[in-house]
Amino acid sequence: MVLPESTVKLGTSKSCIRELAAYGAVRKAEIGAENVFDFSLGNPSIPAPDCVNETIAELLKGDSVELHGYTSAAGNDSLRKAIADDLNARFGTHMEAGLIFVTVGCAGALAISFKATLLPGDEVVALAPFFPEYKVYVENAGGTLVTVQPREGDFQLNLEGLEAAVTERTKAVIINSPNNPSGVILSAESLTELAQVLHTAEAKYGHEIFLICDEPYRELAYDGQEVPCVFHFYENTILCYSFSKSMSLPGERIGYIAVNDRMPERSLVFTSIQGAARSLGYVNAPSLMQRVIEKCLGATSDVSKYKENRDLLVDGLRAMGYQCVKPDGAFYLFVKSPIPDANVFSEHAKKYELLLVPSDDFGCPGYVRIAYCVSRDMIERAMPHFKQLAIEYGLTK
Amino acid sequence: MVLPESTVKLGTSKSCIRELAAYGAVRKAEIGAENVFDFSLGNPSIPAPDCVNETIAELLKGDSVELHGYTSAAGNDSLRKAIADDLNARFGTHMEAGLIFVTVGCAGALAISFKATLLPGDEVVALAPFFPEYKVYVENAGGTLVTVQPREGDFQLNLEGLEAAVTERTKAVIINSPNNPSGVILSAESLTELAQVLHTAEAKYGHEIFLICDEPYRELAYDGQEVPCVFHFYENTILCYSFSKSMSLPGERIGYIAVNDRMPERSLVFTSIQGAARSLGYVNAPSLMQRVIEKCLGATSDVSKYKENRDLLVDGLRAMGYQCVKPDGAFYLFVKSPIPDANVFSEHAKKYELLLVPSDDFGCPGYVRIAYCVSRDMIERAMPHFKQLAIEYGLTK
Repeated sequence: MVLPESTVKLGTSKSCIRELAAYGAVRKAEIGAENVFDFSLGNPSIPAPDCVNETIAELLKGDSVELHGYTSAAGNDSLRKAIADDLNARFGTHMEAGLIFVTVGCAGALAISFKATLLPGDEVVALAPFFPEYKVYVENAGGTLVTVQPREGDFQLNLEGLEAAVTERTKAVIINSPNNPSGVILSAESLTELAQVLHTAEAKYGHEIFLICDEPYRELAYDGQEVPCVFHFYENTILCYSFSKSMSLPGERIGYIAVNDRMPERSLVFTSIQGAARSLGYVNAPSLMQRVIEKCLGATSDVSKYKENRDLLVDGLRAMGYQCVKPDGAFYLFVKSPIPDANVFSEHAKKYELLLVPSDDFGCPGYVRIAYCVSRDMIERAMPHFKQLAIEYGLTK
Repeated sequence: MVLPESTVKLGTSKSCIRELAAYGAVRKAEIGAENVFDFSLGNPSIPAPDCVNETIAELLKGDSVELHGYTSAAGNDSLRKAIADDLNARFGTHMEAGLIFVTVGCAGALAISFKATLLPGDEVVALAPFFPEYKVYVENAGGTLVTVQPREGDFQLNLEGLEAAVTERTKAVIINSPNNPSGVILSAESLTELAQVLHTAEAKYGHEIFLICDEPYRELAYDGQEVPCVFHFYENTILCYSFSKSMSLPGERIGYIAVNDRMPERSLVFTSIQGAARSLGYVNAPSLMQRVIEKCLGATSDVSKYKENRDLLVDGLRAMGYQCVKPDGAFYLFVKSPIPDANVFSEHAKKYELLLVPSDDFGCPGYVRIAYCVSRDMIERAMPHFKQLAIEYGLTK
């Protein structure tokens, strides 16, 4: 049977994250869930803010036909306006409802954004480490992903690496801040340098280069850290957002695309986004959730728990000799593997029932990702196991 | 700015249905909603069955993290099993959970199915009249849509037309029964003939040809009419279903793909479906709605109202001299335009505030589609306007 090679391959190869999670499920069944330290998945462990379920209960009293009916393809106008107003109030932008396209989660937003902008042969530069599915969405749109390694030490922009990667074929750069898997927030300095490189390249090659920003972790920033608003740094910016992490609604698939109000051809780009969504089979984002988000905009889950987890892990692991950058946001810790091959290290950590995702698929080998959107209790119980692992690798005594 | 031609074009050209609906919205604001007879949209007018909102209210009492969390990409196993069991109980199939992929609506199911099966250059044969977005999804997967006109008079299979359209390049045939826009249910005889043509072509050309069945209207069949289960007629069948119409949940985007348990390479095809869903940016179908469907499976909205509407329209319009096939299912009436160009007729009907969708985009020119998922009251008030239109075209006195 002749089927497309790409989809068969994608359907066969699980991501290493999902594979480790599947191993975890089996292991938990074998030895008890309390004995497995599963740091594999970025599935929020904190409930949605109360207003979510309260709003759902309230909406059920209204007209069922309207509540569950089609919305326009870009989303309800009132929601789109609320999102634009929210961005304006928080970031001093001049967004309008017409620049907001409500999506089926951030994955939908990203797949649509690449489909709307890429022509076959176009290249997309991704700043590593990055979410592995970028490659899938870029290739679906006929493009190729090119990787730039982060700056040694702090995981900020590697300026020389970026300059070398941006060529005549570059149509877009994708960034993710706060970052999965490093937790690093790209600084204003990094964004300024990034914009300079792109402005120079646009002038040199005579075509636009889009900056696509994947920001599902925008509201997960700790210690008063600000996530700079990318719209102010670069005109041709497309923002992809999701309520999955900030409101703990990952299964409900609700997010949006926002096209920078300062993008010269924003209207044409928005048109292409509408067409791309249609071609990928998206009719509208889930209607009940659209109404929930409209009412709850601005609310977030109690993310202070994630900060506590971060501190516990960073302090604890560093004391054991592990190396990591302290994450400013998101809920991931990126720990340097004590040996060059992080796959071997991850495999070995299973001996201590520690499930740590090796970083190769994030485009940045030699690390493991620890998702700390878990219970504090599990982290505390995991610590002696991390210690034994550290001893085995000679990191501590 | 260089953007993909296809997505810009798709984003610019509204479907004729959406265009007419937009005109209707403006017109209602001008002269009052009660004075516009809007038959443009297939948006259910009957509420969801009570169990939907009851189940949502019940689910809100449970664990929020689990309720709104990620599910596996193919959907919750318990829902997949429930769907397989439901199909088995009703149609005598031998489906298993592993052959069910829960989707973001039927549009998602169709886009995924084409992406999972088509290679560039492949052709898909569509039996006209058909839902215009088929062309969009087929072209997104690199294929080309080829159209077969229906049999004159009863809109059943045009055997000669199909035989001429199926060639070495044919990778799939897409059917939709009960049909949008004709309301016709493909008979067991038509399906038998169709299967024969495809079996012959598979043997002749030495490769599989998929039958993709778009069945969102399966539960909307009147007068005790049965919708034959296509799995029994043809092995290489992929079924695309949605709860949009049967449960009046079009905005919630929940449906499924079912791969025939008798398909020899069902496992490989399912793998490709999983990969295709990933590449189009689908992570999982909305999680709350997955749980709702699992509890409510088998419930339907009170579709008897649609039957009343159908009878009112068919009897009324025929008495005025209009020609139409009496629909056995769905909620559309396909009326022959009294002049060859249905666009001109549709435009002219606006004079009487009647919004009727011209059929060109359905691949079957010369008709208008009347969506009768509206209030009975509106149909009754529209009748004198249909009469005047009929008089103007000399159909009646």
